[in-house]
Amino acid sequence: MLKFYYNPISVNARRVWVALLEKQIPFEPILVRLDGDQFHDDFTTINPLQRIPAIVDNGFRLVESLAILDYLEAKYPNPPLMPSGPEAIAVVRMIEAITVVELQPATIPLTRPLVGLEVDPQKFEAAQQRVTSILHFFEELLNQQMYFAGDEFTLAEVVAGTLLPSLSLEDYPRLKAWSERLTHRESWQQTIASPEVIEVALPNIRKILERRS
Amino acid sequence: MLKFYYNPISVNARRVWVALLEKQIPFEPILVRLDGDQFHDDFTTINPLQRIPAIVDNGFRLVESLAILDYLEAKYPNPPLMPSGPEAIAVVRMIEAITVVELQPATIPLTRPLVGLEVDPQKFEAAQQRVTSILHFFEELLNQQMYFAGDEFTLAEVVAGTLLPSLSLEDYPRLKAWSERLTHRESWQQTIASPEVIEVALPNIRKILERRS
Repeated sequence: MLKFYYNPISVNARRVWVALLEKQIPFEPILVRLDGDQFHDDFTTINPLQRIPAIVDNGFRLVESLAILDYLEAKYPNPPLMPSGPEAIAVVRMIEAITVVELQPATIPLTRPLVGLEVDPQKFEAAQQRVTSILHFFEELLNQQMYFAGDEFTLAEVVAGTLLPSLSLEDYPRLKAWSERLTHRESWQQTIASPEVIEVALPNIRKILERRS
Repeated sequence: MLKFYYNPISVNARRVWVALLEKQIPFEPILVRLDGDQFHDDFTTINPLQRIPAIVDNGFRLVESLAILDYLEAKYPNPPLMPSGPEAIAVVRMIEAITVVELQPATIPLTRPLVGLEVDPQKFEAAQQRVTSILHFFEELLNQQMYFAGDEFTLAEVVAGTLLPSLSLEDYPRLKAWSERLTHRESWQQTIASPEVIEVALPNIRKILERRS
């Protein structure tokens, strides 16, 4: 059975978790505690880069959430999470890339004060501006559609939809409605980190953010 | 004709440029000067996130290098730059994601002293360790193969192969041989930034790195 290395507080792991549930792929969840677990030899064998998520499927080891999503799509194509057609594919890939390469790093300075860490006011301000311009762009891309690629739920939702609900979407009515639709899905409800889990994980979140500063 | 917004010093733009050449897609190159050009209204209309590369193809506007690569692959499938088979696809996606999400940000602190900017010694050290562990992992993944996905030249080469040749590969003989094979391709030779171009661009590189600190 597919082994899924995860932690419930990891947005990167949650993406894969949601896709596994949406595609109804049977899997064995393996908790990586993030209190240093990720640096132990056992896990370093799975991922030399010491990050979750990782999967091992029939002996095939794979890391990086976006790569895992594409592997699942190729290996377990139904239900599909990628549209066909170059322009729809492009939109999904653009949402995935902006979320992971631009938006996620920009949220780091914004998270620091929430866990009691100091933050350079200039960096905070720059991060806030970056997040605003990305959300504005996403709001425009979503337009009047149900989902980013049109009527189909795709990896754009899986990737952006596991990060955006944690941001304030009050100024973005389309994104807010889209985000609420997603949080009603079973795959979102099954994978949301409870306040208790987050509370317990706070010291680890702090340590991880300190390393990324 | 496809419009390609680029600058010769941008690694992100070079990926797309190489793919356009490899696929022999006719295009009109549009230089974005990066001396502030990227913040002007003209370009903000193309990319509200004010980054290159961007393309406009038959009126369809697209940003983010990885998204553009997948769009080109879907729209202009020959010659293919993606393998078939879930495991080969997974390897290509893993190389792409690690390069863009992990390796590229890690090279930023290493580049700062090269352009006369200060760098926190701890950050420099951490970045060096990160680059080393990634190159070690890539060396292992490449194994005895010609290319990351086997015998086929793919997007793994396009993405990693436009960044790695700028790093020291002395300790990684397989990556070094792979990198040298790539630099002999016409698409690499046509897109390499000359020392003169880099020299002229230094003040802009410095400004961009300052904003990212």
